[in-house]
Amino acid sequence: MNTLTKGECLYEGKAKRIYATEEPEVLWVEYKDDATAFNGEKKDVLEGKGLLNNEISSIIFSRLKEVGIDSHFIKRLSSNEQLVQKVEIVPIEVVVRNVAAGSLVKRLGIERGTAFSPAILEFYYKDDDLGDPLMTEEHIRVMELATPEELAQIKEIALHVNDRLKEIFKDIGIQLVDYKLEFGRDHTGEILLADEISPDTCRLWDEKTGESFDKDLFRFEQGNLQDGYTTILSRLGGNE
Amino acid sequence: MNTLTKGECLYEGKAKRIYATEEPEVLWVEYKDDATAFNGEKKDVLEGKGLLNNEISSIIFSRLKEVGIDSHFIKRLSSNEQLVQKVEIVPIEVVVRNVAAGSLVKRLGIERGTAFSPAILEFYYKDDDLGDPLMTEEHIRVMELATPEELAQIKEIALHVNDRLKEIFKDIGIQLVDYKLEFGRDHTGEILLADEISPDTCRLWDEKTGESFDKDLFRFEQGNLQDGYTTILSRLGGNE
Repeated sequence: MNTLTKGECLYEGKAKRIYATEEPEVLWVEYKDDATAFNGEKKDVLEGKGLLNNEISSIIFSRLKEVGIDSHFIKRLSSNEQLVQKVEIVPIEVVVRNVAAGSLVKRLGIERGTAFSPAILEFYYKDDDLGDPLMTEEHIRVMELATPEELAQIKEIALHVNDRLKEIFKDIGIQLVDYKLEFGRDHTGEILLADEISPDTCRLWDEKTGESFDKDLFRFEQGNLQDGYTTILSRLGGNE
Repeated sequence: MNTLTKGECLYEGKAKRIYATEEPEVLWVEYKDDATAFNGEKKDVLEGKGLLNNEISSIIFSRLKEVGIDSHFIKRLSSNEQLVQKVEIVPIEVVVRNVAAGSLVKRLGIERGTAFSPAILEFYYKDDDLGDPLMTEEHIRVMELATPEELAQIKEIALHVNDRLKEIFKDIGIQLVDYKLEFGRDHTGEILLADEISPDTCRLWDEKTGESFDKDLFRFEQGNLQDGYTTILSRLGGNE
């Protein structure tokens, strides 16, 4: 796999570009510096964000691998690039909530900071035109977005990820508030953790000060995004 | 119970007034002619609506009782009044969907008219200030709106109601598209079907023409609401 090169750009998303390689089952991911929030309504280019997310996501996927949680991640290639296994993305955003924040507080009036144990799992339909609406397992059933067996697997993996991820962040003095996971099907049809796990997709609060080190810095202009992400990366033991 | 009289007004909702009676566990319900839609944004007074809903709801609750489905309904008192058992309302609106329409089509892009078998059950948080948001069973759990046992009972009753209600409407040439149910706890803590079942709370389409005979007539100004509701009442064998 050392000889792989970056081929045709297959897809450009809000935060990443995906390229083909010589291996049909291997893709080349480039993390962009583009920041978007509120379904693309707020936008900016924040130098260094791609690098930080690539590094953080690589560390986290590697750490999950150590406890037996496979993902599409193969290896980090450069400061802002990584190789991943090709998957067909299941169009469901899985949100894991350990603490009430964000849309949960706004939609249901639950007090910010309320802790949940076990965590809440939510599903959102991955559709920008519809604004990624909340959906129930019944909706997933009738829309046939995943089979009942796949959904059971997704839930099991998400809770396993949560157990490990809470530890990883607790060890570095961070409260893992909530985060989004995505899953895909590999060429054998197996469900595999995919996308990224980074301060773009997690809400991360300092355990002592409550300070945010995540995309809320950008969403609500609470501070310098790169500084926050750099804190996470350095506490995780990575090098900027 | 023949000697009961209408006491103090305990509560006035968008479509009904609730009065006390001499019996602490019995309430006197008066159906109003007020029509509201879109969480109260659209309003009108439609003469005769209260009478039609009172009659239709009385017939339906009686028919459900015949197949063993209890509800808070005791008896019809007058054209626009009925006696009901007092319950503590569970703040969850249960929506049963046999066919895609309304918010489901808008939120998730499912094609209008798509049939579901089994039906979809959805839960909405009964909170006008929050706009009655969709919620999942996990939200109900953490908000402690109902115990897991109560929720299981609510789902079982809702599906039982659906089996019977589909038949009742099929027999009169009506497709039961979707509808909202509410549940309460009686003084022993038992879960009981409550509120009303009427063209205000159901989407009812003519099986042959697809014509609406429900609140969509008012919501989208598709025609005369009273005419539509009268069609339902007369097909159900009631007298206006």
